[in-house]
Amino acid sequence: MRFRFRPVDGSFYDLFSEAANHLVGGADLLAEMLSETSNKADVAERMRAAEHAADETTHQLIRRVNSTFVTPFDREDIYALGSGLDDVMDMMDEAVDLILLYEVKVLPPELAGQVQVLQRCAEITAAAMPGLEGMKALDEYWIEINRLENEGDKNHRRILAKLFSGEFKTIEVLKLKDIVESLEGAIDAFEKVANIVEQISVKES
Amino acid sequence: MRFRFRPVDGSFYDLFSEAANHLVGGADLLAEMLSETSNKADVAERMRAAEHAADETTHQLIRRVNSTFVTPFDREDIYALGSGLDDVMDMMDEAVDLILLYEVKVLPPELAGQVQVLQRCAEITAAAMPGLEGMKALDEYWIEINRLENEGDKNHRRILAKLFSGEFKTIEVLKLKDIVESLEGAIDAFEKVANIVEQISVKES
Amino acid sequence: MRFRFRPVDGSFYDLFSEAANHLVGGADLLAEMLSETSNKADVAERMRAAEHAADETTHQLIRRVNSTFVTPFDREDIYALGSGLDDVMDMMDEAVDLILLYEVKVLPPELAGQVQVLQRCAEITAAAMPGLEGMKALDEYWIEINRLENEGDKNHRRILAKLFSGEFKTIEVLKLKDIVESLEGAIDAFEKVANIVEQISVKES
Repeated sequence: MRFRFRPVDGSFYDLFSEAANHLVGGADLLAEMLSETSNKADVAERMRAAEHAADETTHQLIRRVNSTFVTPFDREDIYALGSGLDDVMDMMDEAVDLILLYEVKVLPPELAGQVQVLQRCAEITAAAMPGLEGMKALDEYWIEINRLENEGDKNHRRILAKLFSGEFKTIEVLKLKDIVESLEGAIDAFEKVANIVEQISVKES
Repeated sequence: MRFRFRPVDGSFYDLFSEAANHLVGGADLLAEMLSETSNKADVAERMRAAEHAADETTHQLIRRVNSTFVTPFDREDIYALGSGLDDVMDMMDEAVDLILLYEVKVLPPELAGQVQVLQRCAEITAAAMPGLEGMKALDEYWIEINRLENEGDKNHRRILAKLFSGEFKTIEVLKLKDIVESLEGAIDAFEKVANIVEQISVKES
Repeated sequence: MRFRFRPVDGSFYDLFSEAANHLVGGADLLAEMLSETSNKADVAERMRAAEHAADETTHQLIRRVNSTFVTPFDREDIYALGSGLDDVMDMMDEAVDLILLYEVKVLPPELAGQVQVLQRCAEITAAAMPGLEGMKALDEYWIEINRLENEGDKNHRRILAKLFSGEFKTIEVLKLKDIVESLEGAIDAFEKVANIVEQISVKES
């Protein structure tokens, strides 16, 4: 065990964990939204509350960066990681919102696969956050996110092929494509978070 | 008042103000483009000129960064802010261009609301630029841009709902969606500018 | 001639050249994909192999950044340039993939113009990489990429106008728009690479 002499503020790590935990909740709400029996307006309402809570965590992070003299790593990186986590939430919120807004009644079952990828991304991102403190075990997290992103990419293309198979009316294709792309955007946003974590660990190592 | 001993080059601030003022002009041209009585080809022509003028300001910034020994803040940040302001202009130019290109005759009146958000973003961004010199009053600017971005987001989703309401032919939906998304892209680009300004002020404070 | 006393690792430059050369190959495969007589499944298969090879080069770069004590320029910049080159490949791969996936039989001849822009971007990017070592001749590269990006932008808008001219069924417009946008995305990704190179040269000069 190494002693740490720098008077770092431990609660940055807590706030990153909190932000990532909001994403676990958001991904679960997205899964609920896809269920045929869910009350979509109600799920969307809870998603909005979750998104506001995530915003509040991000604002706390920014305020702490502004008011803390010694930060555990570069201010810009704390800022980038905070924004990156926030972007994931925004994309998941958008997906939920579009499902409600477009009044899509029948969602292709393939979408559930994408949401499972998102749930897994959220879980391992939340699990990785405490690792920031010791900069350990982050390589495996980064590799797994990249694997999930590839899986998501394959799902995405398979779903697009289905949308264009002739089974759907053109206007429905347009709607579903937006929803499907916001799911893919959320997965990409998780990958960006992993890339920022990787960059931080490269700098600090 | 604090003395500033660093021999900084004041004209960086002038160039940022100039770049932001181009955006005020661009947003006004966009508003003109939406007017039913405007000569669209003529407005698009003036937009192109405004976009070239904005490019010229950006190039001056880059050249000055390359030839100045001591810059008022990090070179990369000057570069990022210059590119960020330029990106807004590109998005507004794209919106104007698409309106002309797609020969859309009837634009939903809701688009005017988005352009008003853009005009307000441009105004407060231009007003914030001189504040870079003393790093003051920038928090309020950042908060207001974020509020405007949220408002723009709500407008955007309302417009999408209207596009998919069945009132428009599918091919028209496709065209209008592109235009509406470039407006939203311009608002997002303003938010990115505000985030860069925030990051600069975090570093410098 | 200046002596270089820093014990820099020359092979970073080799890896950047290798990454850029993958892009030359990728752009050529894209050109082959557009040919009416090509076996599209076979070209897509070779594109996938090229994309994996490019990934491997990126991973080598990252590993080397992690294991090298003195790097020729900032670790973050090496990382950003590596990711930037990788992003171009991803966009070209997406274009090839969509052409196969959407089973588009007739591609508008205007797409060939965009692919020629991409081939030219790839060539001059590959030619510029060795220049990173002496930070010379990079201005001309940057200016030429920006010129190509403008040309690509004009092509792009011309193609969009054609797609919406009434000649194509709406569902075909949707498919072709995706393909055309991934080509434009690849050109934009080349511009981003040039911007990163420019930023590196600004820092190092």
